[in-house]
Amino acid sequence: MGTPFFFSLLLLRMEQALIEYLSGFVTPRRLALFDRIINRRTRYITVVLEDIYQPHNASAVLRSCECFGVQDVHIIENRNRYRVNPDVALGSSQWLSLKKYHGTENNTQDALAELKKTGYRLVATVPRKRNSKSLDEFSLEEGKAAILFGTEMKGLSCEALNMSDEFLYIPMVGFTESLNISVSVAVILYQLTRKLRMSDLSWELSEEEKTGIKLAWLKQTVKKSDLLIERFLKENS
Amino acid sequence: MGTPFFFSLLLLRMEQALIEYLSGFVTPRRLALFDRIINRRTRYITVVLEDIYQPHNASAVLRSCECFGVQDVHIIENRNRYRVNPDVALGSSQWLSLKKYHGTENNTQDALAELKKTGYRLVATVPRKRNSKSLDEFSLEEGKAAILFGTEMKGLSCEALNMSDEFLYIPMVGFTESLNISVSVAVILYQLTRKLRMSDLSWELSEEEKTGIKLAWLKQTVKKSDLLIERFLKENS
Repeated sequence: MGTPFFFSLLLLRMEQALIEYLSGFVTPRRLALFDRIINRRTRYITVVLEDIYQPHNASAVLRSCECFGVQDVHIIENRNRYRVNPDVALGSSQWLSLKKYHGTENNTQDALAELKKTGYRLVATVPRKRNSKSLDEFSLEEGKAAILFGTEMKGLSCEALNMSDEFLYIPMVGFTESLNISVSVAVILYQLTRKLRMSDLSWELSEEEKTGIKLAWLKQTVKKSDLLIERFLKENS
Repeated sequence: MGTPFFFSLLLLRMEQALIEYLSGFVTPRRLALFDRIINRRTRYITVVLEDIYQPHNASAVLRSCECFGVQDVHIIENRNRYRVNPDVALGSSQWLSLKKYHGTENNTQDALAELKKTGYRLVATVPRKRNSKSLDEFSLEEGKAAILFGTEMKGLSCEALNMSDEFLYIPMVGFTESLNISVSVAVILYQLTRKLRMSDLSWELSEEEKTGIKLAWLKQTVKKSDLLIERFLKENS
């Protein structure tokens, strides 16, 4: 955000040039897929995971985000190191923008403060209670939403709940009052991304965002892209 | 269904008497909970799992069924013994009616033929393809639906696909073309049970069904219910 206009324009131009260059190493079919997918990506909804610890849950969450087009996942590591099970994630994390918060005493506060600063409403997922909204009622019209999910057993921390602007629950009708964490994420994302895409809200990525992400995808896809980029930059400087 | 009318009436009366008797050992609060939950249970939608093998997936599926009020789960065991992880299932299976099919060469055929005989449309969940309907389009007006889910890696067997009446997919917009199995079940059940409860369809259980299930729940809940029932039957015969 703080980048001077001229510099960010320069960066954008350079990224676009790199995309053009790296695109030469990828099939047209693959490039068309990139474009189709990036046009459906969103940052209007983002996912925040606080201290999730079972690798199969973490991995299923990433996979659901990728499938439903939610680009950013914020991972807060307090007690638990976040690990991914590759058999469950199926490589989905390479297409997402993951941001980790760890190593300080205030990982949760740092993460949520940053999200708030960039314009997100903080929406805590909770068991049904007073002042919480059901998934059906929840409106996206009020602005970008960061949906917060807590650990498997204890849910969100006090810090996270205190900083939240809203509370969201999935309506249930059985004895068991809670869903598995990866299941909760998917049910909520399916519902909200569907609603978002049918709305008039501008949920798409900006051109700058698309450029940055597309370049990251190309780097992942093209073999030895690091060397290629180095050579390209030398030749064009 | 072949039970003669008189006999089934007698059975119902006996079950009702047993319910009244066992209710004396349960708090009124608990009984009220039973009634509230049973009134929201449905058999209009049922879940069929073919050869699911990861215990955490199997367990998360049961938990989702329970949470969304789907009473029956049909479990086909071909290669894989169905196992439950209690930390994930959270006791949800005790409130469900599980039916297992195993031990023959034709578990899949047996299960699906039986469901068809009892009036279910067989709906296979598949990756998006021709002739399949998206979850949003899928209509419940055409009758009771058994939703079929296959193994984590291979999906449904040829036998299951051949016997299916319809094909259903969850719309996705990412690189990853499939969701985790327990996630798929939950997304579909959330969506369909919600639609069902808002419809005019008669999705509730019959009084006979409610009676049978309530009795099963009481047996689970009351300590030494077996001995109590034995005594009751002796005293009332």
